[in-house]
Formats: sequence, C-alpha cells, structure tokens
Amino acid sequence: MTKAIQAPIVLEAQDVRDHLSKLDALGAMRALFTNLGQDKAVQPAQTVTLLPGDSGDFITYMGASAEPNIFGAKLSPYLPQTDDPIITAWTLLMSAKTGRPLMLCDSGELTTLRTAATTALAVDLLARAQARTLAIIGAGSVARAHLEQVKGLRDWDEIRVFAPSLKNENAAAKWTALDERIRVAGSAEDAAKGADVVMLCTSSGTPVLKTEAVAPNALVTSISTNVANAHEIEPTFLMQADVYCDCSTTTPSSAGEMKLAAQAGWSPDSIRGDLAGLVCSNCPAPTGDRPVFFRSIGLGLEDIFMAHSIYNAATC
Amino acid sequence: MTKAIQAPIVLEAQDVRDHLSKLDALGAMRALFTNLGQDKAVQPAQTVTLLPGDSGDFITYMGASAEPNIFGAKLSPYLPQTDDPIITAWTLLMSAKTGRPLMLCDSGELTTLRTAATTALAVDLLARAQARTLAIIGAGSVARAHLEQVKGLRDWDEIRVFAPSLKNENAAAKWTALDERIRVAGSAEDAAKGADVVMLCTSSGTPVLKTEAVAPNALVTSISTNVANAHEIEPTFLMQADVYCDCSTTTPSSAGEMKLAAQAGWSPDSIRGDLAGLVCSNCPAPTGDRPVFFRSIGLGLEDIFMAHSIYNAATC
Repeated sequence: MTKAIQAPIVLEAQDVRDHLSKLDALGAMRALFTNLGQDKAVQPAQTVTLLPGDSGDFITYMGASAEPNIFGAKLSPYLPQTDDPIITAWTLLMSAKTGRPLMLCDSGELTTLRTAATTALAVDLLARAQARTLAIIGAGSVARAHLEQVKGLRDWDEIRVFAPSLKNENAAAKWTALDERIRVAGSAEDAAKGADVVMLCTSSGTPVLKTEAVAPNALVTSISTNVANAHEIEPTFLMQADVYCDCSTTTPSSAGEMKLAAQAGWSPDSIRGDLAGLVCSNCPAPTGDRPVFFRSIGLGLEDIFMAHSIYNAATC
Repeated sequence: MTKAIQAPIVLEAQDVRDHLSKLDALGAMRALFTNLGQDKAVQPAQTVTLLPGDSGDFITYMGASAEPNIFGAKLSPYLPQTDDPIITAWTLLMSAKTGRPLMLCDSGELTTLRTAATTALAVDLLARAQARTLAIIGAGSVARAHLEQVKGLRDWDEIRVFAPSLKNENAAAKWTALDERIRVAGSAEDAAKGADVVMLCTSSGTPVLKTEAVAPNALVTSISTNVANAHEIEPTFLMQADVYCDCSTTTPSSAGEMKLAAQAGWSPDSIRGDLAGLVCSNCPAPTGDRPVFFRSIGLGLEDIFMAHSIYNAATC
C-alpha cells in the first residue's frame, strides 16, 4: 500500500500556544541530552549571518537526531528598527526517514520555553539536593518560564526575584501572586545573597550581578542574548567556579563571558562537563567547594526537539 | 491600516513545476551575482551535518539579500537506503523586512535549474564570443537543464553530447530530437575534442574527461555532487588553466578537485575571479592563452533567489 504524501503543517504563534500546555519541555530536553550523550543526536555549531548593509543578522540553529529520526533548522533574525527590533524565530522540522518537511512553526515562545527547560535540567543535575533558596534575576517572559520549569525541582522555601521593573508595585504584585514563596528583592545582590541557586534570566549584554554576593556553593545559571559578547556575569567568575555548559563543543566559542575570559587566560578545557555528560554520567559532578556556573547558548537540537514535541501535540 | 498577517505558502514539487516556465533563471542568477558584487547580498559558507549512526548527512545552504529584502536556507538531506538514496531539498524563504516566512518549497527541480543557470552565466561571461562548438558530458536532467540554459548564449554550430547511457539508441534519439545541432559522441574525449565549451554535468565523484582532449582555449565547466571530494576533472587541470568559480570565498574549501589540488601545491589564491567579480568587472578576464576552468558548488543565495522567483510566480 502506498502511503499518501503528508503535507507539512504550518503553525503560527497562536497555534503553538494552543498546544503548549501539553508539552513536557523538561522531559524533551532530558531525552535530547541523553541522545546526545549516546551519540544518537548531532549538534553542529550555530551560524550567524550578518545581513547586507548593517541591517541586522540571522542565526541558524541546526540539529539532527536518530530517535526520533528528525533533523532541521531554526532561523532567527534580529532586525533593527527605528524603535524596538524585530526578532522572530521559525523552525523547519524535517523527517530523516523520508527527507520531507513535517512542519514549519513559529518558535518564539518555544525558544523561551526550551531555554528555561534547559536551565531547569541543569538545576536538576547540578544544584544540591538540599537547595532551598532560589533567586531569579530578571522579570520578563524568560524569567517567568524559568520559574515555571524550576519551581517543582527542589523543596524551595523561598523564591526571590529582582528586576528594575519590579520597583513598579503592580509589576511586583503580579510576580508575588504567582507563588506564595516569592518575594521581590531590592537588588540583584540582595536576591542572590545566600541563595542556593541564582538564575540569571535577562537580555543584558553586561553583568547583572556582583559575584561577591554569590554564596560559596551556589549554582549560578546564565543564558544568551543577541548582543555581541553578551555576558550576564563578570568573565572573571569563570576562574572561581566549577564551569558547566549546555554543549562543550559549541558553547565556548559563542558565550560572551567565555570568549572574554579566554582572552584573559581562562581555558575552555577547564569546563568540567555539559548536559549530555551530566545526564549520561560521563563527566564529574561539582567539586562542592566552589560556586558552580552553568552557561547555555541554546542549541539547535533543543529547537528541533521542542518542534517535534509540538508537532506530536498538534497531530495526535 | 493594519495589514493582515500573510500565511506562508507551501509549494510541493508539482506546484513548483506548474510555475517553472515563467522563471528567468539566468536573469535571477545575474541579479544575484550583481548584488553580491555590490555588497547587497551575503553568502555564508554552506554547512554539512553528518546524521547520527552513519545514516547520511544534510547540507544547509544559506543566503541573505537586500534587494529583494530576503534571507533563508535550503536543507538538502542525503539519506542512503538499501537501493537508491533519498535526496531532497526544501527551501525556507523569509522576509528580512518582517522576519516572517514567505514560503516553504520543494527545491529539487529548482536546484537543477539554478545549477544550470549558474553554469550558463559563467558560459556567457567566460566563453569566447565566437564559440561555436558546445560539448555536454552527462545526459541526465542536470545535463538537459544545462542545454536549455546555454543553447541560446552563442551561435552554436554543433552541440555534442556524451554519456554511457546514450549507447542506448532510444536514449540517444531522445537527445538528438531536442535540437537539430545535437550529435551523440562515442566518448567524452570525442565530444570535447576541439570544442569551445565543455560542460561537465554528471554526478560522478571521479574524472569523466581526459584533460588532453581539452582544446587550448576552451572553457570547461564543472558542478558539485554529494560524493566526498567529488571531482569531475583531474585536480592537476587546475595548474594548467585559468580558474574561476561561483564564489571565491566559499568554493575552494568545498570543491573536491580544489581541495585535492591544494594538497598537491596548488593555491586557491590563483583563482582569477568569481561570478560576482565577473558580473561587476572586478576581476580579470581569461588570459586567452590557456584553457579556462569554471567550478560551481552551488550557493545558498542561488536557492534563495530561485525560491523568490517561484514565490513571485506563484503569488502574482
């Protein structure tokens, strides 16, 4: 029997949103990094293409996996305007069985979700079991997604959040309404002081936290943004910490504080491990006598696995 | 007035075929390389990603242009099977004005067409005006597309074609029926002997023509295929010829005979020019006292411009 050709589906942002609640993003990320650690997935480096005439750029995030048997690419342009830049993200998901496209989907919210779920996987693998205090720096949609993904991973007694925007009482009230353990801190350092886990969830290109405030055995997580050489923390922090990242073959050449630290004598060889290594127990755990730093740049495989999850949700 | 969001269109192979006759492929390639020469287009390197478990690869061809204001990527997987491999190609065309996708299209036939149109542009720019004899090595769809694109560029007296498959009388008759000037040659060397232009249009990984048969001032063109280090001509031919290529920043690191010749002491610096340089008169013409070799690897920009042409044809 010949199977009819299945047309690729197209999901706009609202279509994706309709299925988001069905997704197990953390589970998808755990599956991905397990595959990567078992050589059942491949993560090529992301590529940045500058648009002609200084008119922005686009990043191509690629990935391929054997289980599920898929590959694809997310294209994410950054297009400066007279006011706010246009930033979008669309993923083309392909079948590695048939070579045909399965889906084209808006990946704006999926990118936020996978970024948070990747941090959550790192928190689950790197934070001490007895961690009780969580700090979140940033209060945008990325910070909120981080809270959602991480809040059930430890028995948090207290969740502190800081962002300049939370000086606004209404904005602060919206956050404290999310969870009874949340309190708004007066500064990033106030939020971080003595916290077991500090998640930096900003789009800042420069440090958002003085590292003196980081507790001796705390986990600090940091994400990427579009700004060239963006770093949410001082590059020197890498010399004082046990450093982990999402993918040791691709992250050091993209992460701003790693590039800057490397210029100052830090070596990417000192990275203790990445998520594939941690999930598959192929790299050492934190020493326990220094802070732990986890940096993600966001991988094409994360986008491909999130796209596959939403594809399953939309077609089942 | 708010403009309604335009959903991206999806074109399957048959949809593309329905519009192919409207395309001016050579004109699109000329516009592309003019833009590239004037810094109004950007050509990043193609990337090859090996699929897990030795199960094939996929190539990502990217490109960006200011006029039209577009960017995008073609994904082309090579998936070995027990019999013939699956090879597909799909292009995601994006607007650099809105950051939204315009189209996802099957690019199988468009790839054949752009490959032929790129060779045709090279023939137009590099072959002597008085060229009268054309030789075509290969007799598949790529060879046929080359014939179509090139047949009107010079006053050809004779068009010779050679492929092992043309020993079959029916196959040969189909070719001679295409144009009254066509005759089937007994060997590649027989076809090439004394010809002004020799187009290698095969998917061979190893040489298909003895270079002794190439006339002193002939133009030889060559294309890419999936085989690692594929070369339709002996790498040593590069030392004897005026060498040109489609894109001097990306072709030398991908083209098989260039990589092999470089190992034997040939330098990519000896490439005299590329299509952007030729179209914009920014590189020297052939010396006239040696054969000319033109090598294309196929550029993402070609795919993006072809996709934009078919998009215009499908939506106007």
